[in-house]
Amino acid sequence: MTVFERDGRLLLLDAGLSFPHSEMFGIDLVLPDFSYVAERADRLEAIVLTHGHEDHIGALPYLLREVGTNAEVWATRLTLGMVKSKLDEHGLLAHTELVEIKPGNGTVKVGPFTAEFVRVTHSVPDAVAVVLHTDFGPIVHTGDFKLDETPVDGRVTDLTRLAALGDEGVALLLADSTNAERPGHTPSERTVAASLREIVRDAPGRVIVTSFSSHIHRLQQVIDAAQACGRTVCVIGRSMIRNINIARNLGYASVADDGLIRAKRLDEFMPHEIVIICTGSQGEPGSALTRIALGDHPAVQIHHTDTVVLSSWPVPGNEVKVNETVNRLARLGAKVMTEATDYVHVSGHASAGDLTRMLETVRPRSFVPVHGEFRMLQAHARLAEAAGVPGHAVRIADNGTILELDEDGVSVVGQIEAGTILVDGLSVGNVRDVVLRDRRHLGSDGVMIVVATIAADSAEVLADPEIIMRGFDSPEDDGEALLEQARTAVERVLDECVAQRATEVHVVQQRLHDALAELASRATGKRPMVLPVVVEV
Amino acid sequence: MTVFERDGRLLLLDAGLSFPHSEMFGIDLVLPDFSYVAERADRLEAIVLTHGHEDHIGALPYLLREVGTNAEVWATRLTLGMVKSKLDEHGLLAHTELVEIKPGNGTVKVGPFTAEFVRVTHSVPDAVAVVLHTDFGPIVHTGDFKLDETPVDGRVTDLTRLAALGDEGVALLLADSTNAERPGHTPSERTVAASLREIVRDAPGRVIVTSFSSHIHRLQQVIDAAQACGRTVCVIGRSMIRNINIARNLGYASVADDGLIRAKRLDEFMPHEIVIICTGSQGEPGSALTRIALGDHPAVQIHHTDTVVLSSWPVPGNEVKVNETVNRLARLGAKVMTEATDYVHVSGHASAGDLTRMLETVRPRSFVPVHGEFRMLQAHARLAEAAGVPGHAVRIADNGTILELDEDGVSVVGQIEAGTILVDGLSVGNVRDVVLRDRRHLGSDGVMIVVATIAADSAEVLADPEIIMRGFDSPEDDGEALLEQARTAVERVLDECVAQRATEVHVVQQRLHDALAELASRATGKRPMVLPVVVEV
Repeated sequence: MTVFERDGRLLLLDAGLSFPHSEMFGIDLVLPDFSYVAERADRLEAIVLTHGHEDHIGALPYLLREVGTNAEVWATRLTLGMVKSKLDEHGLLAHTELVEIKPGNGTVKVGPFTAEFVRVTHSVPDAVAVVLHTDFGPIVHTGDFKLDETPVDGRVTDLTRLAALGDEGVALLLADSTNAERPGHTPSERTVAASLREIVRDAPGRVIVTSFSSHIHRLQQVIDAAQACGRTVCVIGRSMIRNINIARNLGYASVADDGLIRAKRLDEFMPHEIVIICTGSQGEPGSALTRIALGDHPAVQIHHTDTVVLSSWPVPGNEVKVNETVNRLARLGAKVMTEATDYVHVSGHASAGDLTRMLETVRPRSFVPVHGEFRMLQAHARLAEAAGVPGHAVRIADNGTILELDEDGVSVVGQIEAGTILVDGLSVGNVRDVVLRDRRHLGSDGVMIVVATIAADSAEVLADPEIIMRGFDSPEDDGEALLEQARTAVERVLDECVAQRATEVHVVQQRLHDALAELASRATGKRPMVLPVVVEV
Repeated sequence: MTVFERDGRLLLLDAGLSFPHSEMFGIDLVLPDFSYVAERADRLEAIVLTHGHEDHIGALPYLLREVGTNAEVWATRLTLGMVKSKLDEHGLLAHTELVEIKPGNGTVKVGPFTAEFVRVTHSVPDAVAVVLHTDFGPIVHTGDFKLDETPVDGRVTDLTRLAALGDEGVALLLADSTNAERPGHTPSERTVAASLREIVRDAPGRVIVTSFSSHIHRLQQVIDAAQACGRTVCVIGRSMIRNINIARNLGYASVADDGLIRAKRLDEFMPHEIVIICTGSQGEPGSALTRIALGDHPAVQIHHTDTVVLSSWPVPGNEVKVNETVNRLARLGAKVMTEATDYVHVSGHASAGDLTRMLETVRPRSFVPVHGEFRMLQAHARLAEAAGVPGHAVRIADNGTILELDEDGVSVVGQIEAGTILVDGLSVGNVRDVVLRDRRHLGSDGVMIVVATIAADSAEVLADPEIIMRGFDSPEDDGEALLEQARTAVERVLDECVAQRATEVHVVQQRLHDALAELASRATGKRPMVLPVVVEV
């Protein structure tokens, strides 16, 4: 998410989300911190979305809930289709003013800027770069892009227009850094088609293909391959069905009317007459392919003649889950093809050579690498310097960095608090560190609860202590002996407290805590969270 | 871990461990299930270790504790050095009979077999393949290997001996499948040397290198590069120091006497006079490089002239942690070089082309791919068929599969229970599923405990209910309002129970549970573990 500001009026570019890493116990989603925008909500005039991927549009409903729906939301037709479906789910569709971006159609007023949209190729159709004209020359933000000279829809990245902007003199380029560490050029999406066609043609039985559900061109190529071989396509998985429907309805995917069947009709066909397109390319729990791999899908069981194609790559953090899916499928007898072994995937992001070409086409006076981990931003910054942008005009901006553009170029003028906020159940934004720490502790070592009931006046023990252990026990006897030792320890502590007249509740609690923590550690080597409750009657 | 059995007498080949994946909450280590061997401990005569990596020797102390120390442990000199250090830590060294393997030295009696050891190259020195002679011809187990024609120690994989065995007629080949999906040939370890030398030579300041601590040849090349450039080497990190010491003492690493300094002497040198070798190539929490990246290391703070080299690759599952380390180091101003961007690492495992060469050298009558995930075993099986091993003579064996070798080749004759066992604190082997499920639940949604104290006779409430929430709260007010609502709900439930004479403890508990679970879910969207305790006085 990037904010562009002019005369105090705001234009927001993209509002994406990411997924929690494994240390974010129990967290559902990770959003950008909206505070800066929320504090200026009345001056937010436009939200521009470059393309329909979750890491660019996924936070939009949360953003609109926070800042209201006064700003126009600009996006191309397919992106709008995906955004509408999302806003509808969150009950925000009726209140939001959506404006369609028509790339290559000259300049329009977008909030505080005269803007223009330049078509780029990416792994979802209808992606754009955004140009914001300023007194110091245009700012070009590439969005996510690749340089594909033979894209599936024939719509190449519009380098001609970008070169013309370069001739005018671009003040600042912000460009996608995802593949800045990857040398050479990213191959055309179309190069995968031949490989997929051969796989579908030669497969002895069913072909089951998974990919990113927004990768319409990839899915189109699979559908085309199926149709060319006289196979019928069955689409399985909610997001896959939704995205293909959106793309078909808006004319971004072309499928014969009888080309798609529902899963329950699969039995009507011979295996070699079928291609299944399904969700699950990231090994997501509950997704179609994961359930198929677990032998747990109602409509699809793996046969030894099945060919499964993961036409995708594992997003960092998902490698182990994807591996497990692949291993399970192979174990069930399927032939499994992945990008590690077969030519079934190409990236949607420009590699270092392409990025250099972009830099040489736009010839910006200043450069800010965006969209990537720090190591990628840094690699991209080095490419920019090698391409002739002066070192002092290349700025790596971190979350919250405020850059100012003037006639001398771009400079860092401030830093605001702007990290991530977490979605945790119904709560958005404010999960306390201690809560996450406690979850980590509970998740690793479990919990031990002791309840001691004593008389308020005499500290006499009024009931047997109750001890509960969860996520933690001694395995030999499911913890029975340990429970018994814990009871003995509790009774000893309570007796000592009475004998020593140390009967204040917090003292008794502390002593119970220490005794049980020590016992647990000694007996099991684990350090459960020990929660003593002393009830005074 | 593989068991070879003859006339009821056992030889064990390798005893490795693996590390828990992120769904194994709180688990420390993953071991092979020893039950089969433990039940036949009196007939276990020899344990042969092919090389000194954790996934081949790490489970040895646990195994010996379970089956006793009657069996001889065979390994080469360096592997023995590493094993000794491990057994010493576990107090097992004095009781274990260690026998040194001398590769290339002809046949010896090892337990029930006439065996022979063939030198192979791998990413730790002194690795061997194991040959077990049988009435049906030799069995060859490659161990982990690569075909490196110019290894750093000059000790190539002994293809000559393997070819001679092939001439005799090898009954069964078992071979390393790690890189079976990778086409072509694995480059020589020595090819990294030139690259490392250049990096060390050209670096403006310190060079900080991390790699696997057992990768003695890699470390040697770094040390050589440092010495060639007149730099002094400082080794940081416990396992790195230990392994380099073992290798030096046994003559597997050569370092000038004044070549290594301790971290506290770093200040005596100029940055360009220093190379630091440290642990942390997998982003391990608490390791030297991770602490350096966090700005939390007592002896090393990153300067903007530092060059950090990750001469390694992220083991699957560690990608995110490694990435985070790289990003942090880059953010601190270091130049960071990884295998993704620079030629700083080669694999220690044979690629598909090398595996084919091994198959064509040994020409086995039967083939079993080993050491790899199922997808890799399957890829290796395909290579074997392509190399001329008949399809029916290629067997993919899962954990627990019993294969029998006779004059007709190898066939599956049974399956035993043999998965993994878990080390959880002091407990080895028997973590109940419910414990892991509870940890997952606690780690994701936290815990809510309610203690209600009632009179045994009347069910009258004798004390205010105590409510504790951990890993879970409503974020606006740190859970205060939620606590209040919970108290109200508890009082209402208790009143209802009394009114309805439903005062049996389990009924009251169930109702408290349901009311609080419903409240938590409605108020926060989370589903904490709800643990009601009813104390009767």
